[in-house]
Amino acid sequence: MKAPKYKVISDYIKGQITNGTWPVGSRLPSQRELAKQFEVNRSTVVTALDELAADGLIEGKLGMGTVVVNNTWTLMSANSPVNWNEQVQLGAHQASLATVQAINLAESDENLIQLSKGELSKDLFPLEEMKAVIQKVAQDLTPFGYEDPKGNPALREAISDYLKPKGIDSPPTSILVVSGALQALHLISIGLLERESTVFLENPSYLYSLSTFQSAGMKLQGIPMDDEGMLPEMIKASQHSGRSVLYCHPTFQNPTGTLMSEKRRQELLQLAENIQLPIIEDDVYGDLWLDSPPPPPIKSYDRHGNVLYVGSLSKSLNPGLRIGWIAGPEAVIDRLSDLKMQTDYGSSSLSQRAAAEWLSSGLYEEYLFKVRKQLKERRNTALAALNKHLSRWADWSEPAGGFFIWVKMKPEISLADLYRRALSNGVLINPGRIYTTQKLQHFRLSYANAPIDDIVKGIAVLELLIKDC
Amino acid sequence: MKAPKYKVISDYIKGQITNGTWPVGSRLPSQRELAKQFEVNRSTVVTALDELAADGLIEGKLGMGTVVVNNTWTLMSANSPVNWNEQVQLGAHQASLATVQAINLAESDENLIQLSKGELSKDLFPLEEMKAVIQKVAQDLTPFGYEDPKGNPALREAISDYLKPKGIDSPPTSILVVSGALQALHLISIGLLERESTVFLENPSYLYSLSTFQSAGMKLQGIPMDDEGMLPEMIKASQHSGRSVLYCHPTFQNPTGTLMSEKRRQELLQLAENIQLPIIEDDVYGDLWLDSPPPPPIKSYDRHGNVLYVGSLSKSLNPGLRIGWIAGPEAVIDRLSDLKMQTDYGSSSLSQRAAAEWLSSGLYEEYLFKVRKQLKERRNTALAALNKHLSRWADWSEPAGGFFIWVKMKPEISLADLYRRALSNGVLINPGRIYTTQKLQHFRLSYANAPIDDIVKGIAVLELLIKDC
Repeated sequence: MKAPKYKVISDYIKGQITNGTWPVGSRLPSQRELAKQFEVNRSTVVTALDELAADGLIEGKLGMGTVVVNNTWTLMSANSPVNWNEQVQLGAHQASLATVQAINLAESDENLIQLSKGELSKDLFPLEEMKAVIQKVAQDLTPFGYEDPKGNPALREAISDYLKPKGIDSPPTSILVVSGALQALHLISIGLLERESTVFLENPSYLYSLSTFQSAGMKLQGIPMDDEGMLPEMIKASQHSGRSVLYCHPTFQNPTGTLMSEKRRQELLQLAENIQLPIIEDDVYGDLWLDSPPPPPIKSYDRHGNVLYVGSLSKSLNPGLRIGWIAGPEAVIDRLSDLKMQTDYGSSSLSQRAAAEWLSSGLYEEYLFKVRKQLKERRNTALAALNKHLSRWADWSEPAGGFFIWVKMKPEISLADLYRRALSNGVLINPGRIYTTQKLQHFRLSYANAPIDDIVKGIAVLELLIKDC
Repeated sequence: MKAPKYKVISDYIKGQITNGTWPVGSRLPSQRELAKQFEVNRSTVVTALDELAADGLIEGKLGMGTVVVNNTWTLMSANSPVNWNEQVQLGAHQASLATVQAINLAESDENLIQLSKGELSKDLFPLEEMKAVIQKVAQDLTPFGYEDPKGNPALREAISDYLKPKGIDSPPTSILVVSGALQALHLISIGLLERESTVFLENPSYLYSLSTFQSAGMKLQGIPMDDEGMLPEMIKASQHSGRSVLYCHPTFQNPTGTLMSEKRRQELLQLAENIQLPIIEDDVYGDLWLDSPPPPPIKSYDRHGNVLYVGSLSKSLNPGLRIGWIAGPEAVIDRLSDLKMQTDYGSSSLSQRAAAEWLSSGLYEEYLFKVRKQLKERRNTALAALNKHLSRWADWSEPAGGFFIWVKMKPEISLADLYRRALSNGVLINPGRIYTTQKLQHFRLSYANAPIDDIVKGIAVLELLIKDC
């Protein structure tokens, strides 16, 4: 039996509302439009709308036509009660966050030349090795369930061994497996730091483009850098209330690519010890050195438990595994693992097993050897293209590792303008202002993601756009 | 060259502090004990301690001996500034949370008979199928990276198809992949609900044993149940401020095993629509029916977007995959996926691929057929053992699915006592009071986890303990 025509219409409208296609507050098409769409008389449309109104789903509103009025969850999400973004919606930062969202969206546009994305190119994906690792996981499989609160024991053992050559002596009990560095920062911010506390960090820093700390009610206090890294004396100069923390990214800093010198690392740790300032050390790019190995992590000098060390396979190997780690004093790791259990009951067993296999089999080291070579070629290609196309209008320094070149444009060039025009010409760059609270003449150029020829093409497009002005 | 003896001692002590073994505030062994341990003179120990004191690491305190005084992160975690547990540390609930922590610990003790654990027995782990699935993932592998914010498209497609026979029509765009039901609740609580809002829920409910909602500043308001499920009129009776949400677990409720009737489901939804009360429907046990399929989920009757539906593979298949989902209005799913990205950048690609393979290949349905048969045998064995051993002292109803029998002991038996004595006799049960704010004469008995013979043994031990009194 066929449903009556008015029923077809009311079901269609209900479907649109239920799916969220027409959220609460949205206006329905006019009766005339609906009549045309369903090839019925207007009276049939009216019958359908009357039924929906009786359900409390829609209402005729004066001067607005018919409006969706009930869809409880949509209502809740639209009114977005939560303070989650409270801090980040304030003032100047709002504008840059809108840019961040636009960039995030543009980064999944496969038609663009990606000079923005901080993710290794699919061309560098170690397909055969990854297949072999997964097959090994299948072969060795034993029944699994929830993992230990701190993570799979074999993986923590492998991470502990992997950290040793870096000078970090963390037993497996002092290591927490997390789903990447972002989750590490999320757990630290909700579990260890007080609201209203201050986070010192490099300025610029990619943390300005996230809302991790701000969402937890903390303030970011940028510290200037020179070419050896952040300046410890500027931290001393800042008001230090005793409820602060230092976030730093000493090796191939994002976005500037700065490599902190060994001396500076030690000075920073010394300062932190003197004023009892805890350090979060982010070392997600450390394995991606291109010329020579970087100085040891700050954590390697830490004798007083001042440093929480954060690492990850997301940048160097693959973000899809969602495997990172925190190494620190055992009591702190205990607390963070408790929080991790409260938020997601631990990371995927399959990913943890695969990561353990990558690290303990030696495959990861072999793979790094190859990936460094290819990244180096990419970096050199990008630098050559910059030299050829942009040297009249820009300066930059050569990064010794990581993914990014921090390009400073001459003052006469508007970065906002360049970003917009590049985008409409198929090239995505990251304007520097999303990484800071100030105006900057920089953009961040990633040589990691686009096909290598596209990097050159993209930079050539930038030259044309500048010449065009 | 060998290190001087005092250095060996000071390095050892530093190591213990750095590892968190000796957190700040803890007392060092006496000089005499250290001298004995390292077979040195006390003067050598004094030299070592002097060096550590100069580092600011330890201090002699009057009447307390030598104490660890500096280890910044440990200090932060010990002072635990955060309100994360603010609500749950209040009053009566604190006692039951201490019990929850003790139980969590005991659940990983392999020497105990686990009549507590809500996790399928390793005996039921589908090892060959899981290996085959992982091998298929390896075979079909293409380069992967960060997944879509809502999750791997093939998996969302598979979940959408899987939900259809349940009467839930959610397109892949209205589905968010999460790392289990707990993360779903965490995201909803931090992303959609206001602090101070009220969560109506079944009383008792396993949510009382977690701190998900309380940590986000919400109040739990228990609603009594009869054998058809929670009583809608009790919600009406409660003060409803308009900032409330209803959490319910209609199918094989944890801990009572109650199966909500079809009529009750519709009444509850009708009420929620009338008073604009959004519903979170937890359906993690729905696939584990033992006698006949349960009524359709509440979500299947939902035409106004009132229901967020939460499902998972953790109970029915395996918790190590860390794969669950939320289905709801698209605008709400958009918001939750944004939050998910902010906390962990999505779930593991490997797990998502494996889950998609399980669901779309038909393997999951085949496996369910087997697991239901085995669970049914377990349930019947447990019921027979209860009849044989405990019928003089207890009542219970027969669950039609899920993992648990909710056993009510006669008033003369002290549950706290029984729990403690069972534990010291190698049997772990879950006293009912961790699932409620009241005193209860119940315990939750899981027939899912222990080897089937141990279930009978464990119940026999309970009889002996009761007779002993």
